[in-house]
Amino acid sequence: MEIAILGGTGDVGQGLVLRLGRDTEHDLVVGSRSASRAADAAVTYREELAARSDADLEDVTIEGRANEAAVETADVVVLAVPPAHLRGAVMSVAEHVPDDVILVSPAVTLEFDGVGVHYHRPELGSLTAVAADAAPPSVSVVGTFHTLAARRLADLDRSLEVDALVVGNDRVARQIVAMLVTDVDGLRALDAGPLANAGAVEGLAAVQITLERKNDDLRDPGVRFE
Amino acid sequence: MEIAILGGTGDVGQGLVLRLGRDTEHDLVVGSRSASRAADAAVTYREELAARSDADLEDVTIEGRANEAAVETADVVVLAVPPAHLRGAVMSVAEHVPDDVILVSPAVTLEFDGVGVHYHRPELGSLTAVAADAAPPSVSVVGTFHTLAARRLADLDRSLEVDALVVGNDRVARQIVAMLVTDVDGLRALDAGPLANAGAVEGLAAVQITLERKNDDLRDPGVRFE
Repeated sequence: MEIAILGGTGDVGQGLVLRLGRDTEHDLVVGSRSASRAADAAVTYREELAARSDADLEDVTIEGRANEAAVETADVVVLAVPPAHLRGAVMSVAEHVPDDVILVSPAVTLEFDGVGVHYHRPELGSLTAVAADAAPPSVSVVGTFHTLAARRLADLDRSLEVDALVVGNDRVARQIVAMLVTDVDGLRALDAGPLANAGAVEGLAAVQITLERKNDDLRDPGVRFE
Repeated sequence: MEIAILGGTGDVGQGLVLRLGRDTEHDLVVGSRSASRAADAAVTYREELAARSDADLEDVTIEGRANEAAVETADVVVLAVPPAHLRGAVMSVAEHVPDDVILVSPAVTLEFDGVGVHYHRPELGSLTAVAADAAPPSVSVVGTFHTLAARRLADLDRSLEVDALVVGNDRVARQIVAMLVTDVDGLRALDAGPLANAGAVEGLAAVQITLERKNDDLRDPGVRFE
């Protein structure tokens, strides 16, 4: 498959490109608002993988393009942009995506107050629902990757062995995204059902950050149901 | 310590009494609205433990009493009652508990609709907050055990190896409850911070039930952050 990672120069995007580049044979396109930054990031990611003995670049392409060009032939588009830019990112690529593309939303809105970190639930119920609301009707939107710690994801020397919860209204799209998740070493995909569950799934990321702040033996934790 | 488990004849109560009886030396009191049902349950639990080679009853007492009598000398009272009875249970024992008792709330309110299972957040923000609201001011209320599957908890042949998230405003009370949690084989206590986080912690139980319903390889799952 061809996977475009918008916000591919950010921390979550970096980790996803590197893990997908090392562990899978999918074609990867780094998307950014700036084509030159996207191209630079793609070169950097290729170099990082080429320097590793556990990565084989023969079957992998990593290109960098401006967001609009990045999505044009994508099977899956990961929206690894800051939460505040999510709706804008979807709208900016809406005219450029293939009809049957799947958009993947990993973003979570957090609130920090004097007490701690809390999930800020958007009025539509979840950020995944915000992305779905902004997307063309033909396009499936799936939420996942919310509970992956960006720093751990981007450090290929650290194992994952955690779950990614996959949520969205289109069951086939959930299954395709689940296969993509499972392609990454150490990641297990769990089906979290329809979009109505996305707020609860995203909220789990806030619980996880709270636990990391309060418990010394947790460092960039993920979640596992077992 | 002396631990009273109200609702000790129910499924969560049964599992907690059996696990605490097998794995710890705490004195256990099964509480029920009916003193005779409590006494019968205590006998049954003792017999179940006596029949096991991995349980040593020499250092364990398990008694059964009506709720009001069950709490009178308790250090910790676990409110293993149905969510709808939580406030009533706290109010019924409020005059009988020692001043420095810790109340533990494991309950979660769930909603089932056509789409799935959802956490029903009480107006006060969480069921733990409901218990705190109903409790005398001198009493500390801590939420935990929400994510333990009752059936697995009550089957002593199944291992836990899961986390219990401990939440509440009194840090010392959280620490005492965390020690109690840790006394149970396979359970790890994670500090989830103040009461404001309790809704998110309780909501995690609903996510877990959703995941179990959607994923065949999950049976009575717990959660682990790692």
